[in-house]
Amino acid sequence: MLDAKTKVSKATIRRIPLYYRAAQQMQQQGIRRVRSDKLAEIIHIPSATIRRDFSSFGELGKSGYGYSVATLVEEFGQLLQVQSPEDIALIGVGGLGAALIENNFRRNPDLDIVIAFDHDPAKINTSIGDIPIYSFAELKQRLPKGVHTAIVAVPSSSQASVIPQLEAAGITAIMTFAPQPVACKPTTTIRYIDLTSELQSLLYVAHQKQKA
Amino acid sequence: MLDAKTKVSKATIRRIPLYYRAAQQMQQQGIRRVRSDKLAEIIHIPSATIRRDFSSFGELGKSGYGYSVATLVEEFGQLLQVQSPEDIALIGVGGLGAALIENNFRRNPDLDIVIAFDHDPAKINTSIGDIPIYSFAELKQRLPKGVHTAIVAVPSSSQASVIPQLEAAGITAIMTFAPQPVACKPTTTIRYIDLTSELQSLLYVAHQKQKA
Repeated sequence: MLDAKTKVSKATIRRIPLYYRAAQQMQQQGIRRVRSDKLAEIIHIPSATIRRDFSSFGELGKSGYGYSVATLVEEFGQLLQVQSPEDIALIGVGGLGAALIENNFRRNPDLDIVIAFDHDPAKINTSIGDIPIYSFAELKQRLPKGVHTAIVAVPSSSQASVIPQLEAAGITAIMTFAPQPVACKPTTTIRYIDLTSELQSLLYVAHQKQKA
Repeated sequence: MLDAKTKVSKATIRRIPLYYRAAQQMQQQGIRRVRSDKLAEIIHIPSATIRRDFSSFGELGKSGYGYSVATLVEEFGQLLQVQSPEDIALIGVGGLGAALIENNFRRNPDLDIVIAFDHDPAKINTSIGDIPIYSFAELKQRLPKGVHTAIVAVPSSSQASVIPQLEAAGITAIMTFAPQPVACKPTTTIRYIDLTSELQSLLYVAHQKQKA
């Protein structure tokens, strides 16, 4: 098993789920070894970056000979701890929040939205499927013990007031769709999903390609 | 102006919209110069990465003295071509697709979903707000001239059949929420938004932090 104390950069850590999923797919297709240049084609990450990332774990094999797909699946799977189920609270049941509840990460049965919060009286004490929606004012009372992860799908203007309340209720991991960076405790981890920036960046790359 | 022919890595290009938005916010707050370590705190990207990214453009200033916020806004804004409006087609009007139409990138008035496609007879020839929904079978006839960008929000199982049809209709830039990588033309640019991977990666980082 990989040494959990290995110093790995944050950028590398962000790529691990991509590596993990690509390796899983190759395993399902019966592929046993993969070289970094082939992997680069599949996941659109430069092969030099892949080799550098993999070498930071030390034991994944040599690039020239190819990496063992089974080893990649096992090691990255352990790193990501997909074996441990994670119950999630959803904050903000607008169109996006409702869509997230409906989809509910069905691709990974260990990720499970179990409760939702909103401040709209028309939504409070209703449910989507079997996921109940409560008043955000009752966050502390309603949040089940052991839930430390929240997805925030509130309007950008509400984000700065929502985050401290989540922290006060014991949330330590937050994925948010409001791109404005927020001050948070050093023990809190926030991931910003910024669809506008993603689209702008896609268009920039696409325009460069069209010009080439 | 920055030299458009400068060789810039894809990873750097993906970060440009983040830099651009952070610089815009600082400009609105009256901040005139910013050092890479301060910027790193705001956007959660290591300062060494920021310095390396900025140096790849050559003319943005020296880190020790700080970068001119106005220069960053101007140069990155030009790079991202936010001045050129971009009309977008949305493919797949489920919960997520409908939420994207409702939100319609209101943070950037130059990004505009103008038309949507689905194969559900209950949705075809209806609209959300003033965005019409047509049959995906009519993609080629209905897609307005000049639309080369699509957002794909179809079930993962449909993705592989949808992408070639988009390419045949003249789409060259695709942002998709189905994470399975798809074969595409060399002239097509695809950006995969993988919320499951993002969440797994967030949880990995958060768990590491809790252990530390």
